[in-house]
Amino acid sequence: MRVRELAQWLGADFEGDGEIEITGVAPIESAGPNDVSFINSRKAAQQSEASAAGCLIVPMDFASQGRTIIRAASPRTAFARAIGRLHPPAQPEQGIHATAVVGAGAMIGQGVSIGPHASVGAGSSIGSGTIVGAGCRIGRNVSIGDGGLLHANVTIYDGVHIGRGAVLHSGCVIGADGFGFVMEGGRYEKFPQIGGVEIGDFVEIGANSCVDRAALGVTSIGEGAKLDNMVHVGHNCRIGRHVVIAAQTGFSGGVVVEDYAVIGGQVGIGDKARIESRAVLGSGCGILTSKIVRSGQVVWGTPARPLKQHLEQLANLARLPALRKELADLKRRLARLEAV
Amino acid sequence: MRVRELAQWLGADFEGDGEIEITGVAPIESAGPNDVSFINSRKAAQQSEASAAGCLIVPMDFASQGRTIIRAASPRTAFARAIGRLHPPAQPEQGIHATAVVGAGAMIGQGVSIGPHASVGAGSSIGSGTIVGAGCRIGRNVSIGDGGLLHANVTIYDGVHIGRGAVLHSGCVIGADGFGFVMEGGRYEKFPQIGGVEIGDFVEIGANSCVDRAALGVTSIGEGAKLDNMVHVGHNCRIGRHVVIAAQTGFSGGVVVEDYAVIGGQVGIGDKARIESRAVLGSGCGILTSKIVRSGQVVWGTPARPLKQHLEQLANLARLPALRKELADLKRRLARLEAV
Amino acid sequence: MRVRELAQWLGADFEGDGEIEITGVAPIESAGPNDVSFINSRKAAQQSEASAAGCLIVPMDFASQGRTIIRAASPRTAFARAIGRLHPPAQPEQGIHATAVVGAGAMIGQGVSIGPHASVGAGSSIGSGTIVGAGCRIGRNVSIGDGGLLHANVTIYDGVHIGRGAVLHSGCVIGADGFGFVMEGGRYEKFPQIGGVEIGDFVEIGANSCVDRAALGVTSIGEGAKLDNMVHVGHNCRIGRHVVIAAQTGFSGGVVVEDYAVIGGQVGIGDKARIESRAVLGSGCGILTSKIVRSGQVVWGTPARPLKQHLEQLANLARLPALRKELADLKRRLARLEAV
Repeated sequence: MRVRELAQWLGADFEGDGEIEITGVAPIESAGPNDVSFINSRKAAQQSEASAAGCLIVPMDFASQGRTIIRAASPRTAFARAIGRLHPPAQPEQGIHATAVVGAGAMIGQGVSIGPHASVGAGSSIGSGTIVGAGCRIGRNVSIGDGGLLHANVTIYDGVHIGRGAVLHSGCVIGADGFGFVMEGGRYEKFPQIGGVEIGDFVEIGANSCVDRAALGVTSIGEGAKLDNMVHVGHNCRIGRHVVIAAQTGFSGGVVVEDYAVIGGQVGIGDKARIESRAVLGSGCGILTSKIVRSGQVVWGTPARPLKQHLEQLANLARLPALRKELADLKRRLARLEAV
Repeated sequence: MRVRELAQWLGADFEGDGEIEITGVAPIESAGPNDVSFINSRKAAQQSEASAAGCLIVPMDFASQGRTIIRAASPRTAFARAIGRLHPPAQPEQGIHATAVVGAGAMIGQGVSIGPHASVGAGSSIGSGTIVGAGCRIGRNVSIGDGGLLHANVTIYDGVHIGRGAVLHSGCVIGADGFGFVMEGGRYEKFPQIGGVEIGDFVEIGANSCVDRAALGVTSIGEGAKLDNMVHVGHNCRIGRHVVIAAQTGFSGGVVVEDYAVIGGQVGIGDKARIESRAVLGSGCGILTSKIVRSGQVVWGTPARPLKQHLEQLANLARLPALRKELADLKRRLARLEAV
Repeated sequence: MRVRELAQWLGADFEGDGEIEITGVAPIESAGPNDVSFINSRKAAQQSEASAAGCLIVPMDFASQGRTIIRAASPRTAFARAIGRLHPPAQPEQGIHATAVVGAGAMIGQGVSIGPHASVGAGSSIGSGTIVGAGCRIGRNVSIGDGGLLHANVTIYDGVHIGRGAVLHSGCVIGADGFGFVMEGGRYEKFPQIGGVEIGDFVEIGANSCVDRAALGVTSIGEGAKLDNMVHVGHNCRIGRHVVIAAQTGFSGGVVVEDYAVIGGQVGIGDKARIESRAVLGSGCGILTSKIVRSGQVVWGTPARPLKQHLEQLANLARLPALRKELADLKRRLARLEAV
């Protein structure tokens, strides 16, 4: 693909030699004469001078320095698209592998690929063009929309609904029972978990993450939300649209997260907490049961508090030794006065 | 099922119209005229007035308000049972699926269901009525008791023993090697993990949880214990009976947890700690190596301490800015006196 | 095996009765007359007196007390080797199971065992003597070295390289996409993750752990590194040789860990942090983005700081109530002086 063609495909303008052949992508330090790379800020412009990249995707106001460049409002986004174009994901063979097992009444869309040893339960439907990896376990009465991608060894329990274009990574488990028991006569009896799970369009869920089914009602993940690896979503949580959740974070039961919230890794969120829209939860923070984090707030620490307060507290802690010295000094001076 | 029949099945009394047909269960806000719901406290009685539920399961001392009700000592427990009655879990077909692989000498009980692409190793035994989901991997010389339920894609290593009525969720791994190495000549050599795992009767283990085998001896989970998702139980731990453990909690090696302890989510517990009976570990707390948490104690924070001390410390932290102001004030006043 | 033979096999000397038949291994408390056990320190010598062990592996300077002993520079290492000799791991049948699926052009080495329902993608290679457990999913163009051990239900994505002698436990996922998105028009678009993963020789990775592929370039785990269960390694991390990582620890993107670092459980490490050689991260600590932990440093807490500082801070916190009392006392005394 030539620079000219790449620019056209990106809907962007180029400067320099449009005939350079681009065969790969690379970070700016290691890009060669047939690679496209990108810089995201004017500050990074210095790096660009030393780069051997055949073509750079750059911000609109970048001084070209005589290089071959493609200008983009968001160079990172344009570069991401260039990667997708130059390195399209390998496509598995269409069709149902001979070793796969498809239950009675399951509806398999056009162009679907179902890998070796996968199983699809009775009454389930798989949308057109969806890829079901090897060893995936899809229960009964599950629906998965068009254009989905289930990597190998994904498990979907009965009755789960998944929208279009969802990406589920290996080992993730959708629809396991929520954690609910009642104590009776010295033993825990199960509180049956008969609710559902609804995963919106274009959601991505990382490897070995778990989204539990609701006790009653549904657990839901909104359109476009992105979950990293080993995230735990408890029963009856409602995660909003375009929420981002980093790895190893856990949600207890009934948590509500509104649209566009950003949640760091290893965060713990107590029952029925509410995280309002565009709030940001710093990595490792702990949100107490029923706590509300207000729209747009940035919180850190355990128990989580607004970033400014969190930093003040860290500063106060750091000053404790000095404070103790001051106190000792005052004591000495006071004793001297008292002795007068 | 009529209210009359449901009450009888629950061994409880009803008041009102026993002929109302109950077809489902729902939370009190969304229950309709053919749903049963429940309220658990007198406080919730107000909610009940607005509810359209056909029947309510209520505490013994609830004022009926002319509604159709069923009285129960523990309405939540009665409701849980009603769910189990009205929404019995779907039963898979009995028998060994044609694609499953059962090793030599394995003993498969009556009424067992083994799903597609599951495998059972040589010398293992599966108790009567147990369900082994699709893609489950059961090693050699494993024993699983009667009436168990292994959801899809569970992995059991060689030699693990599991009692009756256990429920294992997808992706959980029982019997992987404990984490033990010895440094020798600048390299870690494996300390072979040749011990076992014993899972008691009626234990439930959540999705993607791991219970490691012992180095020597056994790792054990006591009868009736309930583990949520992504719990890690290290080698040689002994978890007592009826212990509850929330998601993403981790136990290092050799931890002892006594009966009826309650352990929150994302707790970390160091090697050889001992958690005595009915102790409560707050979510996210950290228990140091060899620490003993006394029977019935409630602890929070890292390092964990009794709840009262933990709250005092939080309060002391919150007062630090005020304390610094007071100190500055004293300093000023002292300087004034000294200047006299 | 006689004590004489065991000592010879260990390359060590014995004292006492070399003809004792050793059939098993056990911890010192429960060892019987046909078991070998070990003590690791002079301090443990008292325990040895009460032990019924047929043979003890002891430090070089241990006073024999008339027992049958084998002397070793590192008794624990010698004992680990004795376990491996007396309890060799069960070997699965060689060959490709009839239900396994091997893709076109895959190269399967001599003496390989591929279990039931495993699948190996086109163009992949499996080294001699490697064991691929039941239900393992190996993508396309993967290479796995000689003598590896993949327990059941391991998932390897396309293009991953794994060295010799690696041990991967069940449920681990190698090569899933890193967590990278760009916001565009109110939606997250995927930043394609087209990099690779390289796992060095003799690496062990615990159950349900995840090592993500790089965005560009590679994510790497150095020779001899040992990862416990449920560890998350984000994209573009470079974990050094002989690094040890306990359970449930998570690495964000681009973290560098140098050789021989020791990392506790439930640690969280921010983007692009650098952990230098032989540094020790205490369990549960949190390392901020871009932070550098210097070679050999031992850090604890969140944000992590050197152990001494961490302990001082805990001590200062514990003294806060006393400090508040002192302050109140000074105030009273000062008021008295002012009143004069």
